[in-house]
Amino acid sequence: MSEETTLIGLVTDFGDRDPYVASMKGVIAATTRCRVMDLTHAIGPQAIAEAAWFLRATLPWLPGNPELKGGFTRAIVVCVVDPGVGTERRIIAASRADQVVIAPDNGVLTFVAGEFEEFRSVENDSLFLAHGSATFHGRDRFAPVAAALANGASIDSLGPAVSRESLATLDYTAPVYEPDTIRGTIVAVDRFGNAITDVEAGRLGKGDDWEMRVGGVRVRRRARTYAEGGASNEPFMIEGSQGTIEISVDRQSAAAALHIEPLDAVEIRKRK
Amino acid sequence: MSEETTLIGLVTDFGDRDPYVASMKGVIAATTRCRVMDLTHAIGPQAIAEAAWFLRATLPWLPGNPELKGGFTRAIVVCVVDPGVGTERRIIAASRADQVVIAPDNGVLTFVAGEFEEFRSVENDSLFLAHGSATFHGRDRFAPVAAALANGASIDSLGPAVSRESLATLDYTAPVYEPDTIRGTIVAVDRFGNAITDVEAGRLGKGDDWEMRVGGVRVRRRARTYAEGGASNEPFMIEGSQGTIEISVDRQSAAAALHIEPLDAVEIRKRK
Amino acid sequence: MSEETTLIGLVTDFGDRDPYVASMKGVIAATTRCRVMDLTHAIGPQAIAEAAWFLRATLPWLPGNPELKGGFTRAIVVCVVDPGVGTERRIIAASRADQVVIAPDNGVLTFVAGEFEEFRSVENDSLFLAHGSATFHGRDRFAPVAAALANGASIDSLGPAVSRESLATLDYTAPVYEPDTIRGTIVAVDRFGNAITDVEAGRLGKGDDWEMRVGGVRVRRRARTYAEGGASNEPFMIEGSQGTIEISVDRQSAAAALHIEPLDAVEIRKRK
Repeated sequence: MSEETTLIGLVTDFGDRDPYVASMKGVIAATTRCRVMDLTHAIGPQAIAEAAWFLRATLPWLPGNPELKGGFTRAIVVCVVDPGVGTERRIIAASRADQVVIAPDNGVLTFVAGEFEEFRSVENDSLFLAHGSATFHGRDRFAPVAAALANGASIDSLGPAVSRESLATLDYTAPVYEPDTIRGTIVAVDRFGNAITDVEAGRLGKGDDWEMRVGGVRVRRRARTYAEGGASNEPFMIEGSQGTIEISVDRQSAAAALHIEPLDAVEIRKRK
Repeated sequence: MSEETTLIGLVTDFGDRDPYVASMKGVIAATTRCRVMDLTHAIGPQAIAEAAWFLRATLPWLPGNPELKGGFTRAIVVCVVDPGVGTERRIIAASRADQVVIAPDNGVLTFVAGEFEEFRSVENDSLFLAHGSATFHGRDRFAPVAAALANGASIDSLGPAVSRESLATLDYTAPVYEPDTIRGTIVAVDRFGNAITDVEAGRLGKGDDWEMRVGGVRVRRRARTYAEGGASNEPFMIEGSQGTIEISVDRQSAAAALHIEPLDAVEIRKRK
Repeated sequence: MSEETTLIGLVTDFGDRDPYVASMKGVIAATTRCRVMDLTHAIGPQAIAEAAWFLRATLPWLPGNPELKGGFTRAIVVCVVDPGVGTERRIIAASRADQVVIAPDNGVLTFVAGEFEEFRSVENDSLFLAHGSATFHGRDRFAPVAAALANGASIDSLGPAVSRESLATLDYTAPVYEPDTIRGTIVAVDRFGNAITDVEAGRLGKGDDWEMRVGGVRVRRRARTYAEGGASNEPFMIEGSQGTIEISVDRQSAAAALHIEPLDAVEIRKRK
């Protein structure tokens, strides 16, 4: 039974005070017995780029990753960061072997769309709640559609296939890797103040011969662990848990100390 | 088995830092295998009115709503916003076909009591934890009573029946609907700054011929979606997801912009 | 089957915005079907003492307490407050009849180690994720180890036994009880502003003949419930839900009003 194998994960900007999360989870629980997992409800209000990076960072670690065995084998992720709710913006279901993401077509899929095989525009209104609102599709459309998929509905049944190229994307440029220079972007600042870039750490090799420029500052040190970086008060580069370069300062917020914000440019150059 | 059909939902003002939620959930998990769902733990400390509106907004979307099928069929909601803990204030179990709410008798049931059929004063102390405290009934009384109900205890076994009229209520006046004037109340401000009233949107029809007065401001525009409202910077009225009129400003907090607070009066008049 | 009996609980300082909690929960869900419960993710960043008290306050109320029957019978608690991630600091599994805590060896076990029977240094890297990072052991080591235990791995399989005496501890002195004087410590301040001490309330008897000195203030009143304490605006002592003495002020934050912080000393003297 699908109930035994499928996990539904939730990503929203609803915060934790309002009735929105509870209503969505209530509808899901009333329409499927599959397990529901809060992934986050603390995406900044209407912060599409933040949600996009969150999906990029978490999808590889959810059920559906074939290297992880012994538990749930399939994940349905519902992402409701949706300032265009009730307009003509589409709801997209992106599907690959054992993962489906259901999200508004507003750019939240920017970083992950390339890894999905099939895209559907969710239009089959027999799957939506009857008498739904124009202001809360999370509860009235996303939730029952996720439950239907979990209960065994096929991806085809959701609506017509659409192309990857037709999806909305963020105004974002992927990193540029040249032999002596890499240009990337700060994509997130975490709770600890680590400033996370999109630059794959593997591209820098193990060497210590790179220097980063970000917001008028140069970062020369590189560390393998946060504690190692803490040997001095200077900022350092470290390979973070998403496999990309982060900028850290020991037991301080690097982002605050260096005045770094998401979407700032970074440049990493080989030192002579 | 009840474990297959019953969901336990939690509404508290405990926040997320302290051991209180974990202790309550621990007791429930140790005494029933029924699924537990965090609905919110972010009700303002001792904010009874906020909890009351939260229950009004979420109960219709939980299991027990006969229009929602395919998942859990019954919900037990535990509401612990309880400044009177340890005093003579009663613990009430409000019951209807497939929903039970367990809550202190302090007004949190104000908006929903009319929809419940039976009320019990929870006094059967054989259901409470032995050696319980006078300061944490959430863990010592509400949690094990919810688990007992989930495991099949009858509502009768909790304690004596009490009348709806005997329940504590908030100092709140339901909206007054006259042909050309509606008087209501701001009942909540959500994370996005939408100011939510208790005025049923259906009473205004589809027309654009109403004007709201709230806190010295007049709101004349009406929109169907937040995006439509965003066509200008002016505040607008919109039918929110609880079916009542909300006041919004595009990508701003309407509550902050217009200095609106919960319990403010609103008046909606037909324009000549 | 273990899935029927074991609950995995999570205690972290990851907050709710970043992908860390979702990644950990994803790995657990992909590697075991046992139920996962968020206990807290709001421990202050790298606040080891706060996590230590949280464990002390919650472990007695989780499955594994033999007085609580009818639900899950065993708990595995994963505590990731881990500034030393990636260094030589050990990961410890502390085990007793029906509870295991997996935590970094940095003092978080200070208040509870005395109640556990067996300690293992978690070193069996066949249980870790392949290609794991040096910066996120929560996802790459703690999560899959918890799942393996939940799926039936023995505590012996995790790594070599280590002694209780070898564990890191916080710089903390247990309360000193003399006939007329008790010296203790503020161990936490909760959301309501209650300042929680480590002084067992039972040591004071029922009497009203004690006076507390904390931060230059004397607290003479004692109450059984918060509401009883509220009869005046003065601070009062009360037996809190962990069985220790707390300092409260009615509907105010006692900690803010009296300028009390965690780790402040308290002295309670018998009045003449």
